[in-house]
Amino acid sequence: MKANIIDRLIDKIDENDCPIAAGLDTRLEYLPESLLMKVATLDDAAKAITEFNVRLIDELKDFVPCVKVQVAYYEMYGAAGMRAFSDTLSYAKENGLITIADVKRNDIGSTAACYSAAYLGKTHVGTSEVTPFESDFVTVNAYLGSDGIIPFMDDCIKYDRGVFALVKTSNPSGSQLQDLKLEGGEKVYERMGALVKEWGKPHVGKYGYSRLGAVVGATYPAEASELREALGSVFFLVPGYGAQGATADDITHSFDANGRGAVVNNSRGLLLAYKDAKYARMDFAAAAKAAAENMQKDIYAALKRAGKVR
Amino acid sequence: MKANIIDRLIDKIDENDCPIAAGLDTRLEYLPESLLMKVATLDDAAKAITEFNVRLIDELKDFVPCVKVQVAYYEMYGAAGMRAFSDTLSYAKENGLITIADVKRNDIGSTAACYSAAYLGKTHVGTSEVTPFESDFVTVNAYLGSDGIIPFMDDCIKYDRGVFALVKTSNPSGSQLQDLKLEGGEKVYERMGALVKEWGKPHVGKYGYSRLGAVVGATYPAEASELREALGSVFFLVPGYGAQGATADDITHSFDANGRGAVVNNSRGLLLAYKDAKYARMDFAAAAKAAAENMQKDIYAALKRAGKVR
Repeated sequence: MKANIIDRLIDKIDENDCPIAAGLDTRLEYLPESLLMKVATLDDAAKAITEFNVRLIDELKDFVPCVKVQVAYYEMYGAAGMRAFSDTLSYAKENGLITIADVKRNDIGSTAACYSAAYLGKTHVGTSEVTPFESDFVTVNAYLGSDGIIPFMDDCIKYDRGVFALVKTSNPSGSQLQDLKLEGGEKVYERMGALVKEWGKPHVGKYGYSRLGAVVGATYPAEASELREALGSVFFLVPGYGAQGATADDITHSFDANGRGAVVNNSRGLLLAYKDAKYARMDFAAAAKAAAENMQKDIYAALKRAGKVR
Repeated sequence: MKANIIDRLIDKIDENDCPIAAGLDTRLEYLPESLLMKVATLDDAAKAITEFNVRLIDELKDFVPCVKVQVAYYEMYGAAGMRAFSDTLSYAKENGLITIADVKRNDIGSTAACYSAAYLGKTHVGTSEVTPFESDFVTVNAYLGSDGIIPFMDDCIKYDRGVFALVKTSNPSGSQLQDLKLEGGEKVYERMGALVKEWGKPHVGKYGYSRLGAVVGATYPAEASELREALGSVFFLVPGYGAQGATADDITHSFDANGRGAVVNNSRGLLLAYKDAKYARMDFAAAAKAAAENMQKDIYAALKRAGKVR
């Protein structure tokens, strides 16, 4: 079997004992004064954000297995912001981190292929092939069905990459569509999960998980628990811990009986740790690392309580 | 009542007698040899694409009311591509065209607010407010419910902008999720349409249409017809004409009894017209204009047959 990125993610989580994705949803407002002094243009903003991210990556790279970079926080700074997004992904990758581009892209097949070229594949220019954004995983929204997924999965095979498709999101109004009951009693998000499982079957790696995973919010622990049961081979990317309200005990439902099968994102809890009285004497990067260490302990204690790790 | 972008779009369609959005889904491969000669890097590609678009906009600006720019075709050229995307939108707007950024963005509320700042609102840097991408309308995917819509609608009020939410997409596999039947018999896309109608109610303008519109593919004419009936106040952005297979007669179902209520996109049919034997003696921009003129005649003839225009 060829290398599979999901196996590498699982190996890295196991090696680090750390099922955490550091979420680099870096808003300008999150930066300490020292980095903001000279910011007057979008270019300045992008540079300051990149510097902030670089220092976080330097600090976190031996502790967390991966970063999740939310593109909306870069798009709002225009093309300069997208340069910062690209530089952040590249720097994380150069430093041995697995990168998740949280872009939630979606479109018809021919257009999805362009998105895939941007994030997972290559773009042809002149006589060369270029990687516009260095991501190992990308998030997608599968409202358009398999047409919007297949181009990504083709590149996953070609370049050993992975995808997380939205199944059950962490926000309050996600239920307006996702929780609707279909004829027969299944809910929309359950069907979406089943589709993701099916599409991902040809992509299962050595640990029984597919490189087509799902986004399952931690803020709905009962639903996460049912999905974990139903979607055996689907690895979960789990948002919602911390700022959005989910606890470590909520998180445990996304893990399998062996304490595997999920990676938990934390963005604001790490980026803004330095503003917390608890970490007040630290600089922002050290505070983020300390917060990540506490999060790891928090999750492992909860997994122990749930009988999922020894 | 304050100005409403959807009224302005309808006025412009009426003035031009032209319910067409020129789709600038500009792939490098679509460009004529003359523009491709010096392209060796992503920057070169972005510049060539911008030049192609500028010449198309110059030719089309007095004929079509609006352009739809599909961001995937720019993201695949990285940050340089996003600069081309931004420059294209700005140039179209400077030349009096209404701009639709086809980005299909979607996320939880706090993140959706960042996307909205990027495309519809403003981004604060230093002491100034900047518009990263000059779009009048943006497309969104509402799988996450109203949390992902409200931040955009807030900016719509503040800056007189509009939104099109995916309801029934034009691609074959859209049905895998969108056509599922809910308890009670309604389909998922019908419920999505009803939600979009409801969310858009506070945004209805002088012609009875809301600035929160819907994307309804022309490739499913029966469904479009039912949606047109059910979603009175929802204006339709209609993809699928031409390359994707929908005919002008298919398109008529998206229009109301007065020949209003929809704008029809055409991308490849215009961008690649110059490769069609019919327009062989023209340069690419003149060919695109000729193809747009033929499309207009085609649609109006069909609307006449359908009894929707005199």
